[in-house]
Amino acid sequence: MTKEKYNVEELLKKADLPNRQAEAWHPFYRGKIEIVSKVKIDNFDDFAVWYTPGVARPCRIIEEEIKVTKKFRPFAAYNLTNKWNNVAVVSDGSRVLGLGDIGPEAAMPVMEGKALLFKYLGGVDAFPVCLDCHNADEIITAVKWLQPTFGGINLEDISQPKCFKVLDTLRRSKDVRIPVWHDDQQGTATIIIAAMFNALKYVNKKLDETLFSMVGAGAANMATARVMEAAGIPKKNIIMMDSKGILHPGRRDIERKKHKFKLKWDMCINSNGEERDGDIPTGMKDTDIVIAASKPGPRTIEPKWIQTMTNDPIVFACANPIPEIWPWEAKESGAIIVATGRSDFPNQVNNSLGFPGIFRGTLDVMGITITDGMCIAAAEELAKTAEKKELSADYIIPSMDEWEVFPREAVAVGQQAIKEGGARLKLTRQEAFERAETLIRRARKQTHSLMDLGFILKPPQVS
Amino acid sequence: MTKEKYNVEELLKKADLPNRQAEAWHPFYRGKIEIVSKVKIDNFDDFAVWYTPGVARPCRIIEEEIKVTKKFRPFAAYNLTNKWNNVAVVSDGSRVLGLGDIGPEAAMPVMEGKALLFKYLGGVDAFPVCLDCHNADEIITAVKWLQPTFGGINLEDISQPKCFKVLDTLRRSKDVRIPVWHDDQQGTATIIIAAMFNALKYVNKKLDETLFSMVGAGAANMATARVMEAAGIPKKNIIMMDSKGILHPGRRDIERKKHKFKLKWDMCINSNGEERDGDIPTGMKDTDIVIAASKPGPRTIEPKWIQTMTNDPIVFACANPIPEIWPWEAKESGAIIVATGRSDFPNQVNNSLGFPGIFRGTLDVMGITITDGMCIAAAEELAKTAEKKELSADYIIPSMDEWEVFPREAVAVGQQAIKEGGARLKLTRQEAFERAETLIRRARKQTHSLMDLGFILKPPQVS
Repeated sequence: MTKEKYNVEELLKKADLPNRQAEAWHPFYRGKIEIVSKVKIDNFDDFAVWYTPGVARPCRIIEEEIKVTKKFRPFAAYNLTNKWNNVAVVSDGSRVLGLGDIGPEAAMPVMEGKALLFKYLGGVDAFPVCLDCHNADEIITAVKWLQPTFGGINLEDISQPKCFKVLDTLRRSKDVRIPVWHDDQQGTATIIIAAMFNALKYVNKKLDETLFSMVGAGAANMATARVMEAAGIPKKNIIMMDSKGILHPGRRDIERKKHKFKLKWDMCINSNGEERDGDIPTGMKDTDIVIAASKPGPRTIEPKWIQTMTNDPIVFACANPIPEIWPWEAKESGAIIVATGRSDFPNQVNNSLGFPGIFRGTLDVMGITITDGMCIAAAEELAKTAEKKELSADYIIPSMDEWEVFPREAVAVGQQAIKEGGARLKLTRQEAFERAETLIRRARKQTHSLMDLGFILKPPQVS
Repeated sequence: MTKEKYNVEELLKKADLPNRQAEAWHPFYRGKIEIVSKVKIDNFDDFAVWYTPGVARPCRIIEEEIKVTKKFRPFAAYNLTNKWNNVAVVSDGSRVLGLGDIGPEAAMPVMEGKALLFKYLGGVDAFPVCLDCHNADEIITAVKWLQPTFGGINLEDISQPKCFKVLDTLRRSKDVRIPVWHDDQQGTATIIIAAMFNALKYVNKKLDETLFSMVGAGAANMATARVMEAAGIPKKNIIMMDSKGILHPGRRDIERKKHKFKLKWDMCINSNGEERDGDIPTGMKDTDIVIAASKPGPRTIEPKWIQTMTNDPIVFACANPIPEIWPWEAKESGAIIVATGRSDFPNQVNNSLGFPGIFRGTLDVMGITITDGMCIAAAEELAKTAEKKELSADYIIPSMDEWEVFPREAVAVGQQAIKEGGARLKLTRQEAFERAETLIRRARKQTHSLMDLGFILKPPQVS
């Protein structure tokens, strides 16, 4: 990859096309998803089945199960309503993409987009729930109240540190009966780790002998570090940096706020076995891989810092829309593999590779939670899918259009849930694969049929 | 109508068919609605428009409008997301149909059915929100938090008296920015009043010279009485009864709880101009019309009580599934017009005639509330639609399959909102009609296309 091949001006112009299309197409469609019937309506008699009086029967069956079992996870609700496939995309709009705290009304276009991805890639019925409440306790309360409708909760674009409290509290709470997931934590961690597995395989380095530097101490990197630990990577082999430099036990600014920033303080104490102190280049020196999830570049990471890394340096520059360093600059400085968040470069570290398959797999076995173990199973499956096609410096992770990825992840995640005892429904690998594949195929076919029939119109041309 | 024509046993057997179908078909479909794309997805590049990076543009536009106008009803949200057409069907499951307090999990089949009716009859994207919270303040808080996603709120199946507090608080609250409606109050009132208008026309009685008896003092009758007053009927011409008899100023049992049952106490004081005291037959005597919305019959109202009413008595027996009196018994006792809640008798007083068109009309003019005036406009339009086809004792109100009812109501409601200053968008009658008709036609056609294409399968035969 050279600068010639990726002309910056041309690249930026090309990168602007989706922005201009978004501006023209959003007012054209006025929303990205809609509700349709999934039951037959031949005539008005059918409403006596779907509504009163017939509907009283399934209500009674669910009520009866709750009464008899005294449990509030009635199988009947999963069997007689869409709960088995409903996921809420919950956000307070406090940290939306790279836009910051734009509020829940302005966050709607993103949550609708997420719902669209959920259905098209994972066959999951996701619905945006933009909440006009803003502290952690309120968000926790709202999610608890919303449980009866949904089979799972996807938290999205909630600022830190409250997002940690929200996720941890909901995952631990005994009165939370459905899996809760924060995509900016677990989702991002899963994809980064999948890419990391393959990058290290490509350069022949072992997980537990690798020295990691992580630029950025936000939700993404913090969760990635946690899942890395669960995957067997010693925390002392990670050097994490925030805007003020390396995290280490002497960071008084963090110690003072350690009750609010628990995880960050934990990293100060337990990571960075060499007890390095200093700025970002000091942290990156002699590491094998740098994982940056910090502020948009292109010069958040300087090319010369790459030169101080070990042989065959690996660079993940995940900031959007501009990576912390341009891929060709990283390569010119010796990086052997570069991954970014962008679809127009090789090795896109893209959350959309994760949540659709992970929720598909979790819902299909009626999972009661999504553990770090399930994330690692998904990451391994993602890595394996790419490996099967032959790894290269420009191909360490599948792209979104290799859609067999999603049912494969679903199987891996579901089987892991069964293994860990977190699944209420046992499926064989074969059953799980067929189920996931059927639902995903159907969702895609349905979208294309709605286009063919003119229920989805062609948008105006944008050049 | 005679007993011969309506054989009771045959009737009950026939009436059981939807129950048996419901039991077989709910596990077959596992949910009544699903989410589909309403935007084009030709290839994976389109996700750069619908999600990051393109989606940042509409987010910014909404954020900008809120910043500039300092208002939290940004037009941009209605223009760039599905908010303009999203309605939440909110219930805590505390009074579901005739089933009582079955809880939010067991209420899901009903709320899904409601969402189905919303789309098929009104072109509205409604989503079930079954809340695991149970006091009025919590429900009020939940609805406030949910506002950013929705253009309107449909409260459903919430027990009284808390439903009164929830609705009144939300309608009056300054931080509620979208219309809130409780279908068991306003919806039922609208349909009963429409049928009442035509029944009185048919027997040539004037609204303000009619004496009304109302059996039942629940949410439905209480709201009906309120809207009747708004329609020009003096409260003193109404005699209301609960299970203990006529409401009058001497009802100590109600006076003692007057802070909790405000509306009921208000009826004690202000209705019943003759100051009658006694049981249900005493209340019904010499009245022109009895509106019963109380407990299922068939002998909640005795035939002989009908005989004590004035000439040409009108009987609305709205309990489900069995009306307070069988229609043929009412007729044999002299009733000239009988209406019930059932689709297998003439004159079905059916909420589904109201909310789809009323919300359609409200959403289309970006209404900020749904007033009693808008309910009355809908009732008048419903009445007029039947009148145009010629009224008879067996036809005082249209049925659900006369679907021109819905766009007509939408126009009436929207125009009334504009007149009252509660509309943010001004449409002409013609524009309003075309818009409503297009959306409703599209929803129906879409359902039938999904059936034709096999996305909605044929359910098993039930005989």
